[in-house]
Amino acid sequence: MSESNEREARYLRMALRLALRGAGRTSPNPLVGAVLVRNGRVLATGYHRRAGADHAEIIALKRAGKRARGATLYINLEPCDHQGRTPPCTLALIDSGIRRVVAGMVDPNPLVSGKGIRRLRRAGVQVDVGLLEAECHQLNEAFIKYITRRIPFVVLKLAASLDGKIATSRGDSRWITGVAARHYVHRLRNQVDAVLVGIGTVLADDPELTCRVRGGRNPLRIVLDRHLRIPLTARLLRQADAEKTIVVTGPRAPGKKIKALEDLGARVWRVPLVRSGLSFPSLLKRLGRLGLLSVMIEGGGTTAGRALQENVVDKVLFFYAPKILGGDGRDMIGALGIKQVSRCRRIRDVEVKRFGPDLLISGYLK
Amino acid sequence: MSESNEREARYLRMALRLALRGAGRTSPNPLVGAVLVRNGRVLATGYHRRAGADHAEIIALKRAGKRARGATLYINLEPCDHQGRTPPCTLALIDSGIRRVVAGMVDPNPLVSGKGIRRLRRAGVQVDVGLLEAECHQLNEAFIKYITRRIPFVVLKLAASLDGKIATSRGDSRWITGVAARHYVHRLRNQVDAVLVGIGTVLADDPELTCRVRGGRNPLRIVLDRHLRIPLTARLLRQADAEKTIVVTGPRAPGKKIKALEDLGARVWRVPLVRSGLSFPSLLKRLGRLGLLSVMIEGGGTTAGRALQENVVDKVLFFYAPKILGGDGRDMIGALGIKQVSRCRRIRDVEVKRFGPDLLISGYLK
Repeated sequence: MSESNEREARYLRMALRLALRGAGRTSPNPLVGAVLVRNGRVLATGYHRRAGADHAEIIALKRAGKRARGATLYINLEPCDHQGRTPPCTLALIDSGIRRVVAGMVDPNPLVSGKGIRRLRRAGVQVDVGLLEAECHQLNEAFIKYITRRIPFVVLKLAASLDGKIATSRGDSRWITGVAARHYVHRLRNQVDAVLVGIGTVLADDPELTCRVRGGRNPLRIVLDRHLRIPLTARLLRQADAEKTIVVTGPRAPGKKIKALEDLGARVWRVPLVRSGLSFPSLLKRLGRLGLLSVMIEGGGTTAGRALQENVVDKVLFFYAPKILGGDGRDMIGALGIKQVSRCRRIRDVEVKRFGPDLLISGYLK
Repeated sequence: MSESNEREARYLRMALRLALRGAGRTSPNPLVGAVLVRNGRVLATGYHRRAGADHAEIIALKRAGKRARGATLYINLEPCDHQGRTPPCTLALIDSGIRRVVAGMVDPNPLVSGKGIRRLRRAGVQVDVGLLEAECHQLNEAFIKYITRRIPFVVLKLAASLDGKIATSRGDSRWITGVAARHYVHRLRNQVDAVLVGIGTVLADDPELTCRVRGGRNPLRIVLDRHLRIPLTARLLRQADAEKTIVVTGPRAPGKKIKALEDLGARVWRVPLVRSGLSFPSLLKRLGRLGLLSVMIEGGGTTAGRALQENVVDKVLFFYAPKILGGDGRDMIGALGIKQVSRCRRIRDVEVKRFGPDLLISGYLK
């Protein structure tokens, strides 16, 4: 990378970092950060804080005021050209007199993709697209899936021993991973729109599935519970924001239990059954209609296996503690009916990170 | 590290690389490399090629001849001071007129540790010990265990999917890991004194357990086969070096089958039974008496589990392919009877390496 490219990449990385601050608050909008630069100086920055609030570039423009004239805007996503809850950003950019826009990627929405860039160019603004494109894609991987398929991006997160076990034969799982990995999971909960577990995990661990980071907010909490076995005393139902708990059950769940759950403030959704259980695709469509961009499945093994079998997983986050639990422990992923190695599920773009003594191996389903 | 320290470390690393060339050939001796340096120039190098051959420092001294006078010897291990199959190296070093010895570590043999250093110092040779000590220890980790406990160092090597499976429900395991990882396993086989598998692996995979690297040599091949179920047609018994196959069985194995195996050139050993099967400690003692420093257990899951339960594993090498096989696949490690996470087996000093698409996670049992 040349020196000037490196400088430009630095501004765009600043925009990416700003954008990430909105994670978990902007759905169904993308994460966007903007940095206005003139003569090698940052004039103003902005990021999209939540759906309905100003777009990132508008915040930066407002802050820069008249100084924006002649400046360059670094932004991770093509500026919008349509009237939504807010006016088109392209017009504001043209009005501001900025000279150039460096955008990480085009708008992934096939209906509007490229329109903003064309409008800017027609107005004489230089537009360069594609710097740090991979990073910009990754930041908005959930939005990109949502805007093209109208269902949320699904992350499968599990914490296992090196031999792939998430609990002992007795169901003990506290704690397989250490403090650093668990803290990171809370940061992830602060960024995803919903977390999801199977009823087995609720019965075994009675989790709260809350986000315990400072300044964090709780995601929606979803339990797959075909036979409505969730106890009314479950911690999931005893949170101050009980309405954030959605119990997903089958068509024949007893009305009386549904009523009791609703009385506690929870929502109960019925989804169709498929051969192996509750239909993941139906559930995801419904979540998509609510404008949720991302769901993180947090276990257990049965739910993980079903999600993989139904082909709904986009990304895996597997935390491994440097421990061995042995073959009588509980599998991180349930049965998949794979008879030959050549038919296995494959993970691409594998990355490895360390969290204290633990490892995170992440990647995408092929 | 200061510049002169860095230069010294470079010479010692050269000695370590040389020493490694002897791996798999020197047992029951340690791996030793030597570099003679004078006025910033390498005069001569040497390494211990096999038990009975000249020690590393002797080779270097012979090559340097009279030029050794005033030189510094870089060597990963304290020079020996005892008459074995070859005369004490300390005397040759003193005779050569070298000025200084930089040794990575003291001799780990408690009976002779420090004697070589003292003899050299008394003769006026400056001796500095402890540079790159961790690397020197690791290179000879097998020897260090053997010389202090008289049993081989045990490595547990497994190749699994990310969910800890080494085969599908049908037993298919070809291939979980890719070419690079498998090639590395052949390099490891070239360095260890023996490889070991359970009879289940022989029946499922019919492996050869040979070393297929250029210039390599086969390690001993050990099968744990309590009931002597190994077919006489097994590839392990059909190698040109059939005498390198040791079938380990229980006290009551039928004499007729033993005879048939011995007729094929294999060795058959009887070892005592313990609750869970053939006694690993008894086997290791016997291997130790043969002067074997290292054994690599290559599976399957049952054998891996038994070795962990009998507490004989020193180091794990877990290769992971970016694949998922599902809970109906075969566990990389058999049942350990662990009821609580706090009672799990722990791995320390975890390292991660990449081999093509696969990962190697290695570490030591606590």
